[in-house]
Amino acid sequence: MDIEKVNSMDFGEFVDVFGNVIERCPLIADAVWSQRPFSDLEDLEKHFFAFIDALPQSGQEGILRCHPDLAGSELQRGTLTREQSGAGLTSLGADERLRLAELNAQYRARFGFPFVLAARFSYRTAELRTALGEVKKIGSLRLAGLLRSDPAKL
Amino acid sequence: MDIEKVNSMDFGEFVDVFGNVIERCPLIADAVWSQRPFSDLEDLEKHFFAFIDALPQSGQEGILRCHPDLAGSELQRGTLTREQSGAGLTSLGADERLRLAELNAQYRARFGFPFVLAARFSYRTAELRTALGEVKKIGSLRLAGLLRSDPAKL
Repeated sequence: MDIEKVNSMDFGEFVDVFGNVIERCPLIADAVWSQRPFSDLEDLEKHFFAFIDALPQSGQEGILRCHPDLAGSELQRGTLTREQSGAGLTSLGADERLRLAELNAQYRARFGFPFVLAARFSYRTAELRTALGEVKKIGSLRLAGLLRSDPAKL
Repeated sequence: MDIEKVNSMDFGEFVDVFGNVIERCPLIADAVWSQRPFSDLEDLEKHFFAFIDALPQSGQEGILRCHPDLAGSELQRGTLTREQSGAGLTSLGADERLRLAELNAQYRARFGFPFVLAARFSYRTAELRTALGEVKKIGSLRLAGLLRSDPAKL
């Protein structure tokens, strides 16, 4: 998919394709559509990230709370994101799943949002920044994948 | 459901109950959770609306774009919100549905967001304000309904 194709989309098409670049936040893609045309992938990505950065802290935490737990109950319900499946989290043993569920619960209780692939523990504000950085990396990968692929095949 | 019950919810429970107060924007409920405890329904509602009001215009338009078309394709797919069913929009004749689809398309092309129960046409900025007012009324009704009811029955 090239950028001309992206720029020609109406907002319904745009959110069908880009609505989950930020997990369960179609609002953000819908807002980014207002800023078209985009010059290239980097420009498109810049608008997604600028929207996140401009939110108040409660909104940034809200984004993290839209993320499913790593290998959590979504795994059992089969609605796990492709990224989590790709990371091998569908092949955990029962003991590993239980341990991960405990760690997820501890993390949620401590920080007030789910663990989003962030690899280190630190103070709450730093943790928010780190986890949002992970959300952005996930968003980058999704955007790059979407631009490389045919949306009809998604 | 009383406000003490609401204030005792963790963010997972809170977004399960209040995640669709603003249509398809669980991000907003997830952000509002950061502001607990709430003194009463009015206080809870105030936080939802303050979040909307503080968004940049692109974000406010994004909220409107998360709304399904009035009696649009969602109607055929059976995913229409209860409010639209309640308004009798499931009992339209084929001619009425076609006419409404035309009007929806004209509205989307003119304003860049779907028609959200707003009753008059005006300039774009005024229309955005009017339509957001309708979103808030919908949100008020949903909040009042949720506070009156048992979430287990939802």
